[in-house]
Amino acid sequence: MCSIRRFLWGIPGVLSVISLCASAWAQMPMPVQSPEIQKDRQVTFRLRAPKATEVAVTGQWAKQGPIKMTKGEGDVWSVTTGPIEPGVWEYSFQVDGLSMIDPGNTAIKPMREPRTSILQIAGEPPLLTDFQNVPHGVVRQHTYFSKSLDRRRELTVYTPPDYDKAVEKKYPTLYLQHGMGDNQATWTAHGKAHWILDNLIAQGKAKPMVVVMMDGHAAIPGKADGQALFESNTALFQKDLFEDVMPFVEANYRVKADAENRALVGLSMGGGQSLTIGLNNPDRFAWVGGFSSAVPKNEAISSALNDPEALNKKLKLLWIGCGKNDFLIKMNEQFIEQLKEKKIKYEWNQSEGDHSWPVWRMYLSELAPKLFQ
Amino acid sequence: MCSIRRFLWGIPGVLSVISLCASAWAQMPMPVQSPEIQKDRQVTFRLRAPKATEVAVTGQWAKQGPIKMTKGEGDVWSVTTGPIEPGVWEYSFQVDGLSMIDPGNTAIKPMREPRTSILQIAGEPPLLTDFQNVPHGVVRQHTYFSKSLDRRRELTVYTPPDYDKAVEKKYPTLYLQHGMGDNQATWTAHGKAHWILDNLIAQGKAKPMVVVMMDGHAAIPGKADGQALFESNTALFQKDLFEDVMPFVEANYRVKADAENRALVGLSMGGGQSLTIGLNNPDRFAWVGGFSSAVPKNEAISSALNDPEALNKKLKLLWIGCGKNDFLIKMNEQFIEQLKEKKIKYEWNQSEGDHSWPVWRMYLSELAPKLFQ
Repeated sequence: MCSIRRFLWGIPGVLSVISLCASAWAQMPMPVQSPEIQKDRQVTFRLRAPKATEVAVTGQWAKQGPIKMTKGEGDVWSVTTGPIEPGVWEYSFQVDGLSMIDPGNTAIKPMREPRTSILQIAGEPPLLTDFQNVPHGVVRQHTYFSKSLDRRRELTVYTPPDYDKAVEKKYPTLYLQHGMGDNQATWTAHGKAHWILDNLIAQGKAKPMVVVMMDGHAAIPGKADGQALFESNTALFQKDLFEDVMPFVEANYRVKADAENRALVGLSMGGGQSLTIGLNNPDRFAWVGGFSSAVPKNEAISSALNDPEALNKKLKLLWIGCGKNDFLIKMNEQFIEQLKEKKIKYEWNQSEGDHSWPVWRMYLSELAPKLFQ
Repeated sequence: MCSIRRFLWGIPGVLSVISLCASAWAQMPMPVQSPEIQKDRQVTFRLRAPKATEVAVTGQWAKQGPIKMTKGEGDVWSVTTGPIEPGVWEYSFQVDGLSMIDPGNTAIKPMREPRTSILQIAGEPPLLTDFQNVPHGVVRQHTYFSKSLDRRRELTVYTPPDYDKAVEKKYPTLYLQHGMGDNQATWTAHGKAHWILDNLIAQGKAKPMVVVMMDGHAAIPGKADGQALFESNTALFQKDLFEDVMPFVEANYRVKADAENRALVGLSMGGGQSLTIGLNNPDRFAWVGGFSSAVPKNEAISSALNDPEALNKKLKLLWIGCGKNDFLIKMNEQFIEQLKEKKIKYEWNQSEGDHSWPVWRMYLSELAPKLFQ
């Protein structure tokens, strides 16, 4: 937008500009600060919404439900919470039933429908998800034209701290996938995968690795529907992975291009993709993981499961995690029973928690140290 | 958020999930598609807002003002515009006076107050801002701890297409700054600087260069105010640039670390920063540019301007642009008069346009080919 008001918002007081538009300036509402984190971890949320009749904040930490905000001076709605535990939390504003991001906060959860903001509260001592004083990797954004899908796509790649200096070194690769509502940017912007890896590598717990995060939505909704869409999505995702992304990554990054140096791991929908593609392709991926997975249907993986000897020989690790309060727990328990019955080796973490990012960050922290060792 | 509804949103029809929660599924509203670009470049905008009484879209292309949306089936407000010119446009939804992003659109303009979505319409033939079938550079995100500012900061760096392969080659660096409402991510996500550079490099028009984009907001609003804040911001920004970012870039990227291989260019507030710091430090930057600049006060640059011989000798290019309808045009014209009077060499583009991104993309397209030649 081009306007004096837009120009001035953000920082008050460019004298030379003020002199041009003193009256516009005087009439302009100041931006509100939101969220404001106090020293005791109480948090104040604010939103200017003159015509709203009901405003609340829904926060991932607030199990009791929406927290009502009240209208104060300058039509600014606000609320101050009790102390919030350190961590990375999601929240949205509810304005007369409309769910929206906090426009005072630049940290937006990357989603297919962006309605969620991020509140990160650092721990003391720091959490594994906190930005700490250690060497840092780089998060790289690529746009590529997928020949498989005949359209432009986005790709996020994490390179570990020593990557740019150790120009002779080659690295293993973790392909790490998001869930249904999210996209290729969510594992870093919200999952803090880059900081988890930086910290684990600094502690000597994880091997330096390249992490590739694709957009898991390969099918276009509307072109197919329902179950057909879900199945075609996994097939199309695999095509893009095998024919576009893996060749791109292996041509453009210094990675070791063999199964023992490739892991395929995902959460929820991405867990379904990782289990389907990983178990059917142990010649490509020797490390497979599913977090809170939408477990594939039997037909999709039966040929793999019916040759347990081959699978056990080729797979270095099959890692499954699901929270006790996850709505997909039953499906995952059934899958574990099936693996047991078929005598397929696995590691199983039936953890606390539900279908949410705090669980998935914990799983990554637990799984990453096991990979490529 | 952890909910079945959230999990299901995005793609309909995970059979295994549906069987778990068929009733939840049946009750769930489908997400709306927005924006939907038709073949003739008409665009449909949609928002589900059951309780709203007035919804409109304000679009940068729509000089006539807000475009009213009407409520239809399923409480979805919508409007279809006439054909919109190819380009990168900003728009917001106005819901009962509340300005917000389009939650149907993942493309959000990075801003200090995110209320703006991005509509990109490709041109035929492609525009310089379009993603084209040419070699592509990489956009890298860094988080760093600024010792100068004693806090965590974000940094975006573009490396040109051949950077990762030409491991012996060193590159010139363009430091490219945003304006007051924006941040370090805006020049790529919204300004399309990376695609402009990819295209210019592919056409042989611009030299391959590394582009460094800092967060221009170095001072913390509230700690200082008004003019004091503005001045302290430039000073703090310079400190972070000189003591943290330049050393970081020159230690971590293969760049040529001399004035003739460094450019400092910015728009609006960033134009003020670039002119102030650039003109006072020609030993560091031989290329200086200001787009629609908040021109620095005389005192801030008088010692530089009062030694035109030294400045003319050291500067390879001083490039100034401002649109005829920009509210800062007068300030820029006065600055040009001053340069003339002092016999300081410059290039001046008094272009069409106002204080907005279409103008700044055009200026980058015009200036980049001149740099480091």
